[in-house]
Amino acid sequence: MKGLVYRGPGQKSLEEVPDPRIEQPTDAVVKILRTTICGSDLHILKGDVPTVLPGTVLGHEGVGVVEAVGSAVANFRKGDHVLISCISSCGKCDYCRRGMYSHCSVAGWMLGHTIHGTQAEYVRTPYADTSLHRIPEGMDEEALVMLSDILPTGFECGVMNGKVQPGCTVAIVGAGPVGLAALLTAQFYSPAEIIMIDLDDNRLEVARTFGATQTINSGRENAVERVKAMTGGLGVDTAIEAVGIPATFVLCQDIVGAGGTIANVGVHGTKADLHLERLWAHNITLTTRLVDTVTTPMLIKTVQAKRLDPRKLITHRFPLANILDAYATFEKASDTKALKVIIEG
Amino acid sequence: MKGLVYRGPGQKSLEEVPDPRIEQPTDAVVKILRTTICGSDLHILKGDVPTVLPGTVLGHEGVGVVEAVGSAVANFRKGDHVLISCISSCGKCDYCRRGMYSHCSVAGWMLGHTIHGTQAEYVRTPYADTSLHRIPEGMDEEALVMLSDILPTGFECGVMNGKVQPGCTVAIVGAGPVGLAALLTAQFYSPAEIIMIDLDDNRLEVARTFGATQTINSGRENAVERVKAMTGGLGVDTAIEAVGIPATFVLCQDIVGAGGTIANVGVHGTKADLHLERLWAHNITLTTRLVDTVTTPMLIKTVQAKRLDPRKLITHRFPLANILDAYATFEKASDTKALKVIIEG
Repeated sequence: MKGLVYRGPGQKSLEEVPDPRIEQPTDAVVKILRTTICGSDLHILKGDVPTVLPGTVLGHEGVGVVEAVGSAVANFRKGDHVLISCISSCGKCDYCRRGMYSHCSVAGWMLGHTIHGTQAEYVRTPYADTSLHRIPEGMDEEALVMLSDILPTGFECGVMNGKVQPGCTVAIVGAGPVGLAALLTAQFYSPAEIIMIDLDDNRLEVARTFGATQTINSGRENAVERVKAMTGGLGVDTAIEAVGIPATFVLCQDIVGAGGTIANVGVHGTKADLHLERLWAHNITLTTRLVDTVTTPMLIKTVQAKRLDPRKLITHRFPLANILDAYATFEKASDTKALKVIIEG
Repeated sequence: MKGLVYRGPGQKSLEEVPDPRIEQPTDAVVKILRTTICGSDLHILKGDVPTVLPGTVLGHEGVGVVEAVGSAVANFRKGDHVLISCISSCGKCDYCRRGMYSHCSVAGWMLGHTIHGTQAEYVRTPYADTSLHRIPEGMDEEALVMLSDILPTGFECGVMNGKVQPGCTVAIVGAGPVGLAALLTAQFYSPAEIIMIDLDDNRLEVARTFGATQTINSGRENAVERVKAMTGGLGVDTAIEAVGIPATFVLCQDIVGAGGTIANVGVHGTKADLHLERLWAHNITLTTRLVDTVTTPMLIKTVQAKRLDPRKLITHRFPLANILDAYATFEKASDTKALKVIIEG
């Protein structure tokens, strides 16, 4: 089959790779119908994620049709249409039993990381019973690709950890796909204001159409002063960091109000300053999280109920044969205005 | 009357100061029966708290007898025995109505900070109705001085923010009075292990008698390795920082387990490194808090019910006339083995 293979920092190619097969009784093999590219795939390609070995097929998102299941798989059978979670979970270890699938003792983020991923014709999904989700009849399967990773990430790491509540004021720093996913899911809880902060006017414009009540281009404006002015000098109840660099993390510290929460969503490559000399008495909460995808069933229901439209995040489509063009489009998002690009299997 | 006056960095004296009087209708004047010295008084004397002006009477803890009340005070009258909260709160602003008294828009930490404090014969207490607590009949008043600040601080900022739960593993970094207050109140929630970490063997020995199940002298032992060994390599559920320097704050980051909480109690004078490059995916919560003293009524009940014995924290007693000796004893705690020193009015 064809797969997009990581060949070391800066190098990738679409090439012929062996078809996956059932290796463990808990495995499934899924024929990919739709997949996508994640910001973390770009991190891998920069060489930032050394746990990804050259030769690995990338990708940890997708929907497909079950092709085969191992003898221990009870919930799925050949022909089932499934959503693939970016997190594989055994369902049996201490962490899984606490709902912390991201830290599963034997699985976690495996696809496109420690095993071959979804940017291929087929993928082997370990612990299928607890890592796949059945797609309800009649749902828009392409839109559900957004529920493999970015929507649960924005929701769990940003909105839920950030304790977004009715009437509160939220700032989201970073209007990339995950920041926009936080923006969409924050609205479940009826906040009073959602302030979107980014350097890219196009993305801020998109954020407006997605429900942001205020936008700040922090390249042109003093974001701290603007947020303070918008909040009567108090700062926000929730600051969601969706970039992953020290500057945006410090910005969150500057705009969070007393009693507020900073919810980190960004993937950080370096340490950052924490200004405890002023925050020690500011009664704040700061959270970090690798997505557990524990809310995926809930999010599927919100899509069914039309409370969430993940399709909004999809801007481009490419056949698998043109996945290198898809990468180029996604990498140059400021020119191409790409949010999420769909790869059709 | 006599009061202990801050005279600028490094300087203090017991001197004659004007008697306090009712200035606002919401004030009370309280005759001090017992007060004490706090670590933050030492910070002030080092010049670390520039908001304290020379000439200020120090002290924000104490019990006493109401001497006079303003016309708007409804809950207290002359002769009532009261516990003075370190936090004054108007009870009416947005923060107070959320129970965040520490951030009261018009009050907060005033005593011995922005107005004269309790290390004197009398003190004026603003917003008396919502800043004093009636001492129930028959209670040990001296012991209650520990409830003005350190017990609610250890409890609210450490134990409650740290989400201490039955069966969990807690590490407390810093076995000073506030760390020990966290140790005492953590036991309300029946954790499985409480690991106390400090440099002072005497304080660690005290911690053992107060209920610590394990102790680590981090001057002699590798605290990270010891904690990992005690927790099956996983780290603790709750790490309470009760020192207030970057090194101990980083230690907490090194010992907190995935899904755990770092509860900062320490007063920090500088920023600290936050190792987001490993913590971003560690699913942790980090909290900061200036004590609200919202749990003081609850803590009074635990003392009445003999679930908490604050008297354990008192090691020395001095008359007000000898308060300079009390300071010397408290400052040289490693020699004198002082925890909290009582000043008798």
